[in-house]
Amino acid sequence: MKLPDSSRRTFIQNTTLAGVGIGLMPKTTFGLTSSNNIDKLKIGLIGVGLRGTNHLENLLLRKDILITAICDIDNARMELALDTLQKADFPKPQVFGKNDLDYRNLLQLKEVDAVIIATPWLWHTRMAKDAMLAGKYTGVEVSAANTLEECWDLVNTHEQAGSHLMILENVNYRRDVMAVLNMVRQNVFGEMVHFRCGYQHDLRGVKLNDGKTPYGRGAEFGEKGISESKWRTHHSVYQNADVYPTHGVGPIAVMDNINRGNRFLSLTSHATKSRGLHNYIVEVGGENHPNAKVKFKLGDIVTTTIETALGETIIVTHDTNLPRPYSLGFRVQGTNGLWEVDGNRIYIEGQSKPHQWDDADDWLKKYDHPLWQKYGAYAADSGHGGMDFFVLNAFVESAKQNISPPLDVYDAAAWSAITPLSEKSIENNGMPQDFPDFTRGLWINRKPYEWMKNTF
Amino acid sequence: MKLPDSSRRTFIQNTTLAGVGIGLMPKTTFGLTSSNNIDKLKIGLIGVGLRGTNHLENLLLRKDILITAICDIDNARMELALDTLQKADFPKPQVFGKNDLDYRNLLQLKEVDAVIIATPWLWHTRMAKDAMLAGKYTGVEVSAANTLEECWDLVNTHEQAGSHLMILENVNYRRDVMAVLNMVRQNVFGEMVHFRCGYQHDLRGVKLNDGKTPYGRGAEFGEKGISESKWRTHHSVYQNADVYPTHGVGPIAVMDNINRGNRFLSLTSHATKSRGLHNYIVEVGGENHPNAKVKFKLGDIVTTTIETALGETIIVTHDTNLPRPYSLGFRVQGTNGLWEVDGNRIYIEGQSKPHQWDDADDWLKKYDHPLWQKYGAYAADSGHGGMDFFVLNAFVESAKQNISPPLDVYDAAAWSAITPLSEKSIENNGMPQDFPDFTRGLWINRKPYEWMKNTF
Repeated sequence: MKLPDSSRRTFIQNTTLAGVGIGLMPKTTFGLTSSNNIDKLKIGLIGVGLRGTNHLENLLLRKDILITAICDIDNARMELALDTLQKADFPKPQVFGKNDLDYRNLLQLKEVDAVIIATPWLWHTRMAKDAMLAGKYTGVEVSAANTLEECWDLVNTHEQAGSHLMILENVNYRRDVMAVLNMVRQNVFGEMVHFRCGYQHDLRGVKLNDGKTPYGRGAEFGEKGISESKWRTHHSVYQNADVYPTHGVGPIAVMDNINRGNRFLSLTSHATKSRGLHNYIVEVGGENHPNAKVKFKLGDIVTTTIETALGETIIVTHDTNLPRPYSLGFRVQGTNGLWEVDGNRIYIEGQSKPHQWDDADDWLKKYDHPLWQKYGAYAADSGHGGMDFFVLNAFVESAKQNISPPLDVYDAAAWSAITPLSEKSIENNGMPQDFPDFTRGLWINRKPYEWMKNTF
Repeated sequence: MKLPDSSRRTFIQNTTLAGVGIGLMPKTTFGLTSSNNIDKLKIGLIGVGLRGTNHLENLLLRKDILITAICDIDNARMELALDTLQKADFPKPQVFGKNDLDYRNLLQLKEVDAVIIATPWLWHTRMAKDAMLAGKYTGVEVSAANTLEECWDLVNTHEQAGSHLMILENVNYRRDVMAVLNMVRQNVFGEMVHFRCGYQHDLRGVKLNDGKTPYGRGAEFGEKGISESKWRTHHSVYQNADVYPTHGVGPIAVMDNINRGNRFLSLTSHATKSRGLHNYIVEVGGENHPNAKVKFKLGDIVTTTIETALGETIIVTHDTNLPRPYSLGFRVQGTNGLWEVDGNRIYIEGQSKPHQWDDADDWLKKYDHPLWQKYGAYAADSGHGGMDFFVLNAFVESAKQNISPPLDVYDAAAWSAITPLSEKSIENNGMPQDFPDFTRGLWINRKPYEWMKNTF
């Protein structure tokens, strides 16, 4: 396997953050302190919408990176990003975005070691492929791919070019999720048996808005929409599938050693009728609003059940069109007990009172992950309850060393494959669909990433 | 359709309990007061194990029934039943049980109007068929049937003989379940979209015991076991299926008008590995216990997803072999909001604070079912939190009038069909299985039972 030409960049080796005492440092000094820009990881941002800007803001808190290039076809977003950089006293990056393919010019820059792709879903794989082919250490937002062929594209391009890809799944770094992962690794739950997870998030106000502000109440999407409603909503019009599986399945896949001693074997999926988006349009825009005629193909609740090679099952839910409070619905169940995020409760045989739940908080505190113990206070303000700091940190630290990231291209492919496989199962009345083995058999030998440490 | 010969029994018509002020009455006077035994419903009990005895004890609190016959092949259980009757000053019933088929002699008695069948699962359909053919109003414990053919047997026998069958699903009468049913009927949740339910109950100490007392800690079952472990555990040895679906799916089926304007269309099922029962045997009996060699076919968690004719989905869980607190895992979700029993929470758009759960208690109190408002205080001591009173009351009152019961033979068939269909799906890697239409098309015209009243 050809490895990327590491002479093209200067990676910072042997980061020694552990000894720095991050809790005491002012925020802007996070990362290896260095006055020498040559030693810093040079990052190109492709896409500075809401999510890309979030990454940008978190990057600006680090001393070990430079933002050398930004690409966005939306001038307003670009100006906001440049303004943000200037206010943080970061050097002005090179700017791209004169057309849809201008990101390829960014990828040609010697002054870019790594890229973060935060664009609409249909651009993720295309851009990630191009980035890996250009030798860039590639971070891609969730979900990574839209079709099975795109899943293979990611894997094949990585293996051909030797460039690494990390799927930037922030929920893998949520404090409770990492504590439970710690419990899994310490065998508190016993042998793993069953999992539940999903994306249960009322996105009606995201998929539909007033076309002026991202969360402005309205019934517009597509050309008349703004922000995510410009592109994300089309997936609800055209696809009946779990179009956004990774926030739920990412954390579970790591706990269950998927692609590393285990793998997804097959799934079945079922969708309900579609009501939520239409009802919302009528409620907000009236019965005569043109969008009241749109037939949304996406069922309001999509239920997918995955079987794994080691005999566990995983229920994955997609629930984004109906009024409901947010929950990723996690459940992690083994032969000794289980965690359920709904109700915030844990039961462990022999330790909990028989047949009675414990409040999860005590357990989660006891098993707080070393990374959170170390950086928790610092991370708190970074976005999404802190997890955005950790996923970005893992990306930057992995990229600096040019090593395989914690959440790699095989993870990106296997998790993202749920979308096309669920779509096919739903189309065929729940017919089971086999997962490709994206590791080409290597899953039986691949070792789990070493999660239980306090670096990244 | 031939109707049963109602001249063979004297039914009590026009019960007027509503005006009696039950809360003030001493317990033993429940039911229409009558000094005339001829006016009372004459009940035969087939099976007086733990469950049958529970029914017996609740029947003894009523004034509108007589227990005219009891059948059980277990002398110890029979003696306990007779002793219980005597202490309650009930006349001595005729006694059957000299062999497995002696229940058929009970069914020939003129002095039996209605029977309650509470025997091991493999006897349910056989006995229910014979009872209906003998013209008895038939109550059968859950689950009602084991195979698809048995589901049809129940339906065909009912239609041939004209006798009614009620499936005695007590969870349909749970206070929270009935309050939520009230909310469903009043359209609080909007149009129904998605449901979850299941039987999540650590039965290791039921399936395995010491052979001396029903819940005595031990590793025995079958011939060396006692009570349920004598027969129930065999289903875990031989069947990989949701072998006990009705406690979960019964309440949901009523809320979703199954067989009454809606129906189950198809399902897929997935089972995990089987670990819990084996681990328990090793823990309790040691590695060298003979039962440590038993290979249990039943996966520890069985996940079934049902599609309905109106486009809802229902996830049904079977989880009885692992350490965990009890939960039937209900979720009832519509276009306006949802109830989740885990976490005890409800969200209703426009009434709950945006994106925030309400504690379910206030809602459940507000929508407390008329039946519970009327009989709740009385029912509290009847077993399983009161619901046993209500299911028995519905059976007795329906039998007295010889009318179709709230939970009828089509419900029994459709709910019980989940067992064989899930077994076949699991055997075939999750292949979808179609439900038979046990109503032979009548579901499109059948009206829902009138649940929202304060009689039964």
